[in-house]
Amino acid sequence: MSAAEKSLDVVALGAAIVDILARVDDALLDRHGLPKGGMVLVDSEQATAIYDDMGQATEVSGGSAANTIAGLAALGASVGFVGKTKDDQLGKIFAHDIRAVGAKFDTPPFPADHNGATARSMILVSSDAQRTMCTDLGVSGLLDVSDVPTPLIEDAKVLYLEGYLWDNEATKASFRHAMTAAKAAGGQVALTLSDSFCVERHRDSFREIIQGPVDILFANEAEILSLYQTEDFEDAAVTAAQEVPLVALTRSENGCVVMRDGVRVAVEAEVIDELVDTTGAGDQYAAGFLFGLTQGADPGTCGRMGCVAAAEVIQHLGARPMADMKALFRERGLSS
Amino acid sequence: MSAAEKSLDVVALGAAIVDILARVDDALLDRHGLPKGGMVLVDSEQATAIYDDMGQATEVSGGSAANTIAGLAALGASVGFVGKTKDDQLGKIFAHDIRAVGAKFDTPPFPADHNGATARSMILVSSDAQRTMCTDLGVSGLLDVSDVPTPLIEDAKVLYLEGYLWDNEATKASFRHAMTAAKAAGGQVALTLSDSFCVERHRDSFREIIQGPVDILFANEAEILSLYQTEDFEDAAVTAAQEVPLVALTRSENGCVVMRDGVRVAVEAEVIDELVDTTGAGDQYAAGFLFGLTQGADPGTCGRMGCVAAAEVIQHLGARPMADMKALFRERGLSS
Repeated sequence: MSAAEKSLDVVALGAAIVDILARVDDALLDRHGLPKGGMVLVDSEQATAIYDDMGQATEVSGGSAANTIAGLAALGASVGFVGKTKDDQLGKIFAHDIRAVGAKFDTPPFPADHNGATARSMILVSSDAQRTMCTDLGVSGLLDVSDVPTPLIEDAKVLYLEGYLWDNEATKASFRHAMTAAKAAGGQVALTLSDSFCVERHRDSFREIIQGPVDILFANEAEILSLYQTEDFEDAAVTAAQEVPLVALTRSENGCVVMRDGVRVAVEAEVIDELVDTTGAGDQYAAGFLFGLTQGADPGTCGRMGCVAAAEVIQHLGARPMADMKALFRERGLSS
Repeated sequence: MSAAEKSLDVVALGAAIVDILARVDDALLDRHGLPKGGMVLVDSEQATAIYDDMGQATEVSGGSAANTIAGLAALGASVGFVGKTKDDQLGKIFAHDIRAVGAKFDTPPFPADHNGATARSMILVSSDAQRTMCTDLGVSGLLDVSDVPTPLIEDAKVLYLEGYLWDNEATKASFRHAMTAAKAAGGQVALTLSDSFCVERHRDSFREIIQGPVDILFANEAEILSLYQTEDFEDAAVTAAQEVPLVALTRSENGCVVMRDGVRVAVEAEVIDELVDTTGAGDQYAAGFLFGLTQGADPGTCGRMGCVAAAEVIQHLGARPMADMKALFRERGLSS
């Protein structure tokens, strides 16, 4: 199937998570030994201890790849999501919200009597806008091959994979199955490395798929340095570009570097009014970038679209866009 | 027990609800026959139909009296809350949040195998900032007399009762029990009429307790007109003042009228920058007012405190304060 015949722009496999957002002070992070700005996996007992200690919160659907899908939908892309929930209250909230943005979402939830729960991530936002995430993955990592909707993946221009999910053997098999289906149908495979600790845990197998089916790689500076075990960003970028046709590397306030077939394009970050919450910056960068890509934009324009989408999300609390993204892109001359 | 010996300022009996907030257009309200600006009770089937039709949402603890308690806590008052949840995910969220603001909350939840659910209220915010509420009361109305913590109520200067809960016989008995305990311990009883439809349903019994144990009455214009079946606000205010020692009547952009022992004080509304979402205006007015009252402020100052607290909450999405309320009150010369 050629790209023009496909009816979906992007389908993502990712963690189906409901975020629990609260503003915290540094003392709380210290009390629980949480590395500020990091992402830690917690078990149910740790999750309860942190939750009990934090202030009044707001619940909102999250998940890194799901946030990207929501961002793509806000830009007008046609999208689908595959991720595992349980038939509980948070699972229903996640399913409602991903469908409400316009994504196809039909992954069967685990029944109500399953002993797990829909994943939760406590997102602790500090006064300096940094976010520390404590994630209780719940059932989100239990994505079985039988949950992967092959026709949906065949129908998408891009299959987007969330590195966070690489912790579970069943999910790895699902990823491989999905990659094979996407490639066989002429689609492209995109991977986000998600987190530098995630890269630490899975460096070898990430490198294997990066050298294999992956066509598009998303990473931030810490992640790409960890992947190639170097301290030199340019070295890492060049190595990545030798292994993957298209590489998009984000550098926070320094914008991004896009490498396509060995050609390097640097894009400056957007000027913002106020940094409120960095949650979702990478997710929305990927949304903007993939929107451009599936619309046929050049690598530099894709990078700029990523930076504009990221700039929107870091200026408010929460990881999904709140602005009218189509209007914002028109304003910036990025769409007509 | 004299007021000085009590360790709590306000204890409220109210509905324990988690709000589901979304922005909607008028067409959605029309499709479901929802009166814009109103509060309707929906069953589980109607709730599902509306939820499926609305966009991505945010979940946040709500409940009218619980919002008032959260507002009081934000101002520095010592508070408690009594309300019924179930041991489900939304019930845990409600319990966490009310405790996280600093309120005592020990009402036992229904067990996980109870066939009801923790109450949900879909709060549909229109572009003109009006909010339409669709509430599925779930187990929140099933507050039994045995759930009422008599010592907690005896220990509070003010017992605050939410009119919305008056629909259920068991809850009425609980209200009466709580009022008796409060009065016997030298406390004051406050009632909010909650909603004009609520007044329509319960006019006679509301009037009976207003002429009886109620010391402080909160109502907006529509509610007080409905209570006394008149179209003349001043008539209604005078009648209320003859039946209750202290009456606080809110009039949206026209501020409020406070009647104490027959003396009328009018307070102008605060000037605001932008009206975003009227949800919680009445709840936060009551919070500001009761804060003043329990600190010994005069009626006019109580009214102004109410107006300042209401003005804060209508300038953002959500029914609980987001600003540093103590600082805001200091800024306005309302506390030192």
